[in-house]
Amino acid sequence: MILYDTKVAPNPRRVRIFLAEKGIDIPMVQVDLGKGEHKQADYSKINALQRTPSLVLDDGTIITESVAICRYFEELQPEPRLFGRGALGCATVEMWRRRVELHSMMPTAMVFRHTHPAMAAMENPQIPQVAETNRPRVLDFLAVLDSRLAETRWLAGDDFSIADIDGLVALDFLRMARIQLPAELTHVARWHGDLSARPSAKA
Amino acid sequence: MILYDTKVAPNPRRVRIFLAEKGIDIPMVQVDLGKGEHKQADYSKINALQRTPSLVLDDGTIITESVAICRYFEELQPEPRLFGRGALGCATVEMWRRRVELHSMMPTAMVFRHTHPAMAAMENPQIPQVAETNRPRVLDFLAVLDSRLAETRWLAGDDFSIADIDGLVALDFLRMARIQLPAELTHVARWHGDLSARPSAKA
Repeated sequence: MILYDTKVAPNPRRVRIFLAEKGIDIPMVQVDLGKGEHKQADYSKINALQRTPSLVLDDGTIITESVAICRYFEELQPEPRLFGRGALGCATVEMWRRRVELHSMMPTAMVFRHTHPAMAAMENPQIPQVAETNRPRVLDFLAVLDSRLAETRWLAGDDFSIADIDGLVALDFLRMARIQLPAELTHVARWHGDLSARPSAKA
Repeated sequence: MILYDTKVAPNPRRVRIFLAEKGIDIPMVQVDLGKGEHKQADYSKINALQRTPSLVLDDGTIITESVAICRYFEELQPEPRLFGRGALGCATVEMWRRRVELHSMMPTAMVFRHTHPAMAAMENPQIPQVAETNRPRVLDFLAVLDSRLAETRWLAGDDFSIADIDGLVALDFLRMARIQLPAELTHVARWHGDLSARPSAKA
């Protein structure tokens, strides 16, 4: 199998960290978004939506969407469990994974896409007002995250999970959108330190 | 347990359809978004993010996020399987579920929130340009969906899944954003008819 990856983009990073946590090593091919390689005919045949990552299995079957690729490997190699265990465990991981994605990643992406000069061609037109309305949403959610992390070591409880991987990707993405983690969110800062210290953070 | 539901909103509808497909009946309490009930102190204690649905278990444990609630019931009562079966089956369901959510639901929501008079207070300021840039994204994705449904009965293949539930919710949401399904997308129209004819569509 081959994973079509993009080193600088947040969604593919989620898969690389997930694979590193599972101890799974697979061949990767880089798709350079800056050069528009994701919009070329060859890659569009793999993913009509022209996004990375994509996983191509040995029989040619294609799985796109970072979380779907992670789910594939969770089922193939269940341990260590990263999507949770039992009904409540799985639901809790899904809840926090989704919250991070919808309320941190997405509004951060809106700020990034509508302000960063490097995104001027991809997000045309850039609308500064979109960034302005999304920045406070990110900050509001980071405060909710801090309350949660005052109570638990990892986002879904005692066990590290894909929700934490989403968290690391989301927090590191803040810098691209020039959003600073407020100094009073000490629990988020502690968690970010723990996540960054794991070898998988470098994947 | 109690499900905090909102009849008119798309995300809670996903859970109601899912429960109907599983044949699970649980007590529901309506939270009226129009009256701002989701922002009142009582409900904010259940969900700090002030969104519906939320599920409160008998021991007081709270699960929010529609997909997390669905996942909880999938684990409690696996049949009929709605999140797929086996590594490739689960990944395929997740891939299509996510594609529908990210590339149809989300941009449709952007059109709805930034144009509909009923959303003027909730999305303040409404930015017409956001609607203009998101409308073609929805239409582009509907064409991708049509190509897929030319080949398979249900979105993830031979078996009905939560990806189809997402699809029904997303298609019915188009009307709220005043987006018409283009007449040439006959496979999407066939699928929408099949979905709407299931008893769960009325849940």
